[in-house]
Amino acid sequence: MWQLKSNDLSTERLLQEESLFSIGNGYIGVRGCFDEAPDLISNTIRGSYINGFYDRVPILYDESASGFPTVKDKQPRVMDTQTSLILLDGETVVIKASQIRDYFRVLDLQKGLMERSYKYITKSGKAAKIAFRRMASFAAKNILCYEIDIYYDGEIEIISFLDSDVRNHSDSYDPRVANGHDKLLHLNKLSIEGTLVFCEMETITTKIPILSMIEYEVTCLDSGHYSLEHNLEEQKIATKAKSKRHLKLQKKCIFIDGTRSSCLYEEAMEIHSKYSKHSFDDLISMQEEYLNSFWNASDIEIYGCDNIQEAIRFQLFQLLQSVGKDEISNISAKGLSGEGYEGHYFWDTEIYVLPLFQMTQPELAKQLLLYRYHILPQAKQRAKEMGHNKGAAYPWRTISGIECSSYFPAGTAQYHINADIAYGFIQYYLYHGDKSFMLEAAAEVIFETARIWLEIGHWYKGAYHIDNVTGPDEYTAIVNNNYYTNAMAKYHLYWADKLYHELHEYNNADFEELCHKINLTSDEVNEMRLASEAMHLVYDEELGIHAQDDSFLRKAVWDFANTTPDQYPLLLHIHPLTIYRYQVLKQPDTVLAHFLLEDYADTETMKRSYDYYEKITTHDSSLSSCIYGIMASRCGYYEKAYEYFMEAVRLDLDDKHSNTKDGLHMANLAGSCLGIINGFAGYRIKETGISIDPIVPNELAGYRFRIHYLDAWLEIDVNELVRIKLLQGKPLKITIYNKDYIVADTIEIERKQL
Amino acid sequence: MWQLKSNDLSTERLLQEESLFSIGNGYIGVRGCFDEAPDLISNTIRGSYINGFYDRVPILYDESASGFPTVKDKQPRVMDTQTSLILLDGETVVIKASQIRDYFRVLDLQKGLMERSYKYITKSGKAAKIAFRRMASFAAKNILCYEIDIYYDGEIEIISFLDSDVRNHSDSYDPRVANGHDKLLHLNKLSIEGTLVFCEMETITTKIPILSMIEYEVTCLDSGHYSLEHNLEEQKIATKAKSKRHLKLQKKCIFIDGTRSSCLYEEAMEIHSKYSKHSFDDLISMQEEYLNSFWNASDIEIYGCDNIQEAIRFQLFQLLQSVGKDEISNISAKGLSGEGYEGHYFWDTEIYVLPLFQMTQPELAKQLLLYRYHILPQAKQRAKEMGHNKGAAYPWRTISGIECSSYFPAGTAQYHINADIAYGFIQYYLYHGDKSFMLEAAAEVIFETARIWLEIGHWYKGAYHIDNVTGPDEYTAIVNNNYYTNAMAKYHLYWADKLYHELHEYNNADFEELCHKINLTSDEVNEMRLASEAMHLVYDEELGIHAQDDSFLRKAVWDFANTTPDQYPLLLHIHPLTIYRYQVLKQPDTVLAHFLLEDYADTETMKRSYDYYEKITTHDSSLSSCIYGIMASRCGYYEKAYEYFMEAVRLDLDDKHSNTKDGLHMANLAGSCLGIINGFAGYRIKETGISIDPIVPNELAGYRFRIHYLDAWLEIDVNELVRIKLLQGKPLKITIYNKDYIVADTIEIERKQL
Repeated sequence: MWQLKSNDLSTERLLQEESLFSIGNGYIGVRGCFDEAPDLISNTIRGSYINGFYDRVPILYDESASGFPTVKDKQPRVMDTQTSLILLDGETVVIKASQIRDYFRVLDLQKGLMERSYKYITKSGKAAKIAFRRMASFAAKNILCYEIDIYYDGEIEIISFLDSDVRNHSDSYDPRVANGHDKLLHLNKLSIEGTLVFCEMETITTKIPILSMIEYEVTCLDSGHYSLEHNLEEQKIATKAKSKRHLKLQKKCIFIDGTRSSCLYEEAMEIHSKYSKHSFDDLISMQEEYLNSFWNASDIEIYGCDNIQEAIRFQLFQLLQSVGKDEISNISAKGLSGEGYEGHYFWDTEIYVLPLFQMTQPELAKQLLLYRYHILPQAKQRAKEMGHNKGAAYPWRTISGIECSSYFPAGTAQYHINADIAYGFIQYYLYHGDKSFMLEAAAEVIFETARIWLEIGHWYKGAYHIDNVTGPDEYTAIVNNNYYTNAMAKYHLYWADKLYHELHEYNNADFEELCHKINLTSDEVNEMRLASEAMHLVYDEELGIHAQDDSFLRKAVWDFANTTPDQYPLLLHIHPLTIYRYQVLKQPDTVLAHFLLEDYADTETMKRSYDYYEKITTHDSSLSSCIYGIMASRCGYYEKAYEYFMEAVRLDLDDKHSNTKDGLHMANLAGSCLGIINGFAGYRIKETGISIDPIVPNELAGYRFRIHYLDAWLEIDVNELVRIKLLQGKPLKITIYNKDYIVADTIEIERKQL
Repeated sequence: MWQLKSNDLSTERLLQEESLFSIGNGYIGVRGCFDEAPDLISNTIRGSYINGFYDRVPILYDESASGFPTVKDKQPRVMDTQTSLILLDGETVVIKASQIRDYFRVLDLQKGLMERSYKYITKSGKAAKIAFRRMASFAAKNILCYEIDIYYDGEIEIISFLDSDVRNHSDSYDPRVANGHDKLLHLNKLSIEGTLVFCEMETITTKIPILSMIEYEVTCLDSGHYSLEHNLEEQKIATKAKSKRHLKLQKKCIFIDGTRSSCLYEEAMEIHSKYSKHSFDDLISMQEEYLNSFWNASDIEIYGCDNIQEAIRFQLFQLLQSVGKDEISNISAKGLSGEGYEGHYFWDTEIYVLPLFQMTQPELAKQLLLYRYHILPQAKQRAKEMGHNKGAAYPWRTISGIECSSYFPAGTAQYHINADIAYGFIQYYLYHGDKSFMLEAAAEVIFETARIWLEIGHWYKGAYHIDNVTGPDEYTAIVNNNYYTNAMAKYHLYWADKLYHELHEYNNADFEELCHKINLTSDEVNEMRLASEAMHLVYDEELGIHAQDDSFLRKAVWDFANTTPDQYPLLLHIHPLTIYRYQVLKQPDTVLAHFLLEDYADTETMKRSYDYYEKITTHDSSLSSCIYGIMASRCGYYEKAYEYFMEAVRLDLDDKHSNTKDGLHMANLAGSCLGIINGFAGYRIKETGISIDPIVPNELAGYRFRIHYLDAWLEIDVNELVRIKLLQGKPLKITIYNKDYIVADTIEIERKQL
C-alpha cells in the first residue's frame, strides 16, 4: 500500500505511465520515461521540468482586440538527463516483449524513488539482469539521481547523455495541450571538467539561464576493471562507462536556474561540494526521513480497501512531488508530470490543492499563498490593461504572473479567480489565525482583489450585480450574476470589511501604513460591505434552487439523449457557441459554491441544486467528479458519494480522461483526497470553528487523517466509532454531527450508520 | 456636381485619396495611386483587385476549439499595372511640391474615369505638362486603361511596368485590417509577344490562375520619332517608350481570372481582338453611354446644396464601381477600393447596399442575391460544423462561401445574417413579385436559412426564445433574445410560411420538387409559423422600449463622462469583455430593427427607443450614423436627421473614421443614399405597397430620385411640392403622408413643412 506497481509493457500504457511514474520534488520533475531505448514509444513525451522556470512565446490572433495578451509564459522542457543506451557485448538493449522477462517497476512512496528492473535476453540467448533507480531529492531540491545496475556475463556498456536537444510537446488539435513554439531553450555551452559534465542553456525569449551538472560514479564487482569517458558532441555530452560482468552507473544531476539564482555555476559547485560525500543511498535515507515526516502529517489511512489506499497515497505523493516550495513557483495543472496546459498555474491551486495543504502542511500552504503575493504587481497591471481604475485582476493562467490566456471567454472572463485566491488567504487565516501574515501579505492581496468587484459590479434596483463573467463551468460563458462568482465575491467583500477592522485593532500603525500604501479608505471598505450585503444571488422560486446565472434556467437543456458517447468531451466535438447555448455543465458551478460557502444556502436548497445540476453535468472536466462526490456526502447521497469518489480517485490511474499522458490532473489528485476529508468525513472550517459529519461508505471500513487547526494538531479516526484525538495543542471545540464537543485528549462517539 | 476634385498633394491626404479616387467596374478595381513615383507615400497601399478572386490562408489559434474555421479567404492584391517612371532629359519626375504647379485631379462621374495633371519644373527649370487618365470599363469588364500624356521640350521617357511583385497590406495592430499572410500570389510566367506583354500568376493555396495582358500604344506629335521596347526582368516587364517634345503612352490592360474562366490566355486574346479596334476614346464613349443609363435610373438629385450633391453622386458611383455583377462576386466591406477586412463580404450587402439597388438597379440586385444562392452549399456545410442538424448558416465574412471569421463572438455568433439575407430575397419579391425567381433560387435560401431558427431557438413558457447570439451591435456579444435577431427571425419565419403556401399555389409541381429536394414538410413550416407568432420580443414596461436583449437594460451604463475623445473607437482601446459589460453601442441594433420592421412597434415606442439607445451609441461603426439619420426622420427629429445624414455622407470624403485609406466604407456609401430615400423621403416598401412621408431639411431645397416597383418606374420629386410621376408601367397605389393615392400620370401634393 505504499507502492505503485506495474509490469505492463504495452505501448499505450507506457505513455500514460510516463506521467504516473513521474519523479519530482516540487522544484524539478522528470517524467517516468525509460532511460534506455528512448525511441521505444514513438510519441514519448520525454520531459524534465523546473517549476516556475519559463520562456515567453508570442500569442497571435487572427482578429486581435485591445487588451488581449500578446505573449504568454511557457514551461520549457529542460535538458534531458534521463537517457542512456545500454549495450551488452555490443548489442543495444531494446524494449521488446520477446527479449524481456520479469519486467517490473515501482514507485515507492515511502522511499520516494522509482525502481525498475527486468531480465534481458540477448539475441544470442544470454541473460542480463538490469535494474534502474531514480529519485528527485526533497532534502536537496536541486538534485536528481539516476542509477543503472547491470549484471551480465559479458561486456557491458552504458552510454549516458546530457542532451540539450529538447523540444516541447505540441498538439495542434487538443486545446488542452499547446500548439507550436516547441523550441524554448538554446544551448550556451557544453563542458567537461574532470569527472563533471556541464550543460548551460538559456530560454530563448526571457533569457533565463539554466545549468545542469552531472557527476558520474561507476561501481563494479570486479573493481578497477571499468572505464569512463566523456565525449562532447554537438548538442550533447555522451558519457560512456564500460565493464565486464557487472556495471553500476550512478548519476547525480544538479539543476539550477536563473529565476532563483544569479550565479548558477558557483551555486551548482556549492551544492555539489555540500553533497559530494552523499552516496545515492545516503540521499535515499534523507529522502525516507523527509517522507516519514510528510506521511506522519499528511497520510490518509483507508481501512478495508487496499485499492483506494494505494490510490490516495499515490495522489498525496504526486502532489508533494509537484507542489512548488518557494514564492517563485506554484503547482501547475499537470504539476511537474507533463506538458498539458504549458505548465500554467490556475485556480486549481486555491480551490483544490491548497485546502489539502492548509490542513496538513501549513508551511507549503503558506508558500503557495506567497507566490500569489509575489505576482500581485502583475495582477494590478493586468487590472489596468482590462480598463479597471484600481485593484488587481489575477491572471487565469500564468507562470510569471502575466495573463497567459488567449481565449478570454474561458480565461480572463473567469474573474472568480480573484475570489478564489482571496478565499485561500482567508482559509489560511481561519486555520492559523496568523494576523502578522495577514498584515504582511494577505491583506494587500485580499483588498486589491476585492476592489475588482467594485469595478465590474454595479447597483441595480437595490441589489449588487456582477455582469459579464464566466463561472467555473466553462460550458457557459460571459453571463450576468453567475452564482458562484457572486457568492464568492460576497464572501470576499465581507472578509475585506471584517479584516479592515480586525487589522486596525491588531496593529493600527502598521495597518494604517498599508492602507496608505494602497490608498484604501474606510469609505471604499464601506462600499465593499454594502455590495457584499446586497449581492444578487439569483434564486429560482419555481425550482427552489439558485440559478447558475441570470439566464441559465431559461435556456434549452442539452439534448443528452441524442449525444453519442464519442461526442464527449463536448469541447472536442462541438463549437463553444453551440455548447454555451444550452443548459449543460462541464463541471460544478453552483454546486461548488455550495461546497465552499454552504452557509449561503440551506440544506434543502443545496440538495435540490445538486439534483438539478448533476443531471446536466457532463464531467468533461477532471475538476468535476471530486466535487460532486463531496457534495453527494453533504446531501446524504451516500452511494453517489462513493461512485464519484471512485471516479475521481482512479482518474489518472485508469486514464479515464484519455489524457493522463499529458500529465497528472493535480486538482483531481487533491480533490479526491478532499473526498475523504470534506466528503466522507464532512469536515468544514468556518469562522465558528471546525466541524465534521462523518460517514463511511459501505465499501470501506473507515479512514484516518490528521489536521492542523490553530495551535492544535488533531487526528480524526472514523471506524465503527468516530475518535478524535488531540495530538498537540490546547483543548479545542469541534462540532460533530451538529453537536459541539471539547477535545482535550480523545473523544469517542458512535459513528452515524447509513 | 459630377466630379470629385482635388488639388491636395499633402502626404496624409494622398493615402486617403488612393481610396477616394479608386477606379473600378465591379470586376476589377485599382486604387487611385500615382502612376509615377511609386514611393511617394511611404505606406502607400498600391493595390489592384479582382472581385471574388481569393486565396486561402490558415487561421491559427493559440487556444483553438471545435468548429473554429482553420482557413479563411483573402482577396489578393493582383499584379500591378499602374506604375510608371517618367524621365525628362533623364531626370526622374518626383512628386515634390516645389517642382509641381497647377496640380489637379478629378474623378469624373459621368465619363467614368480619373484624370490628373500638373506642370512639372525640372531641376534645370524647364517645364513639362503631364496628364494622366485611367478607366475601368463597365462595358468590357476585363479592361483597365491608362494614359500618360507628356509635353516637354526635350527627351521624354516613360518606363511602364507590369509588376508581379505584389504583397497585401498588413497591420498587426488594427483588427479591421489583416495581419500577416501578405504574399498570396506566385508568378508563373512573364512573356512578351510582339506588342503584347503577359503576366500569369496563381494564388498560392487555392491555385487559381490570373492573367494580365497589356497592349501599349504610343502616340507623339512628331509621329514616327519614338521608340518602344519591352524588357523582361526577374519579376516584372518594363516597357520603355521614348520620344521628344511629346509622348502619349496608352495601356490597355486585360485581366482575367480562374474563378470565371478555364482558358485564360485564349479568352484574353478573344477580348483583345474584340476590342482591338477600340481606342481609349472609343472606350470612354462606351463608358459614358453605360453611365448615362446608370444615372438615368440611379441618380439622386439634390436641390440647393452642391456639397451634398457631389457627395451623393460620388457615393453612388463608387458603389457601382465596387459591386459585383456576377454570381461569383458580391460587394465587400471596402469594395474594390482597399484591403480593409480582406475583401470579405458581410451583411453590409443585404442591409445597406442591396436596398439601394433593389429600387434602382434590379438586375444588379438580383446578381447580389444569386451570389448568396451560389454559396448556399457552403452555408449548409457550415451549419453542420456548428452542430446543427439541418439548415444553412451563412458565414459572417467570406469570399468563396466559407466562414472566415476567427473571432466568433462578433462573427459566427451573428446569426442574424441568415435573416438579413432572407430579408434581401423577400424585399426582391416585394419589389418585383418575381415568383419564378422565388422558385428557382430564393425559396431554397429562405427555407434553409429559416431552419436555423428552429435549431438555435427553443420554447420557454409559451414564447419562442433565441439564445446565445450577437446582434448587429458588436459592443454587446453572446446574449439571449437580441431584439434585432428575434424580430428579423420572426419576419423571416413568417415569410417562410407565407411563401410555402404562395409557391404551392403558383406552381405546385415544381415547388413540390423543391420541397422534396430539401426535405421540407408542412409540419416543419408549421413549426416555423408557430415560432414566428410566439417570438419573444423583450419589452421593458418601465422604459416603454424593446430591450436590446434579455439583460441589456439591467447592465450598468458606460461611463461616457470619463471617456476621453482619444479612447474612441472603444474597440481599439478597451478589452471587449469590458465593453460588453456595459450599456454602450457601437451601432444601432434595436433602432435598426425598427427601421427594417417598423410594423413590429408603434411610433411612440420607436421614438422612446431612439431616445434611449441614441444616448449610449458611440457610432464607432461606420454603419451607425446613416441609420440613426433615417430613423431620426421617422421619429420627427429633423435636425438630427440632417446632422446624422451629413456625418454619413461626408464620412469618407472627410475621413471621419481615420481609416478611409484602407478603403471606402461601402455600407455607409449606400446607407447615406438611403438617408435621402428612406430618411428624408420616408420611403418604405411592405406587403401592402409602397409609401413615402417626405420632408426636406431646412438646409436643402429638395431632391429627386427614381424607383422601380413591380412593373412601374416612378420618379419622386420633393421640392415645395411632392410630385410623383409614373415614368413607365401601369397606374399604381402609393401612400403619401399616410393617405393612399393612385399614380396614373403625375400627382402633386403639398409638401409637409417642418
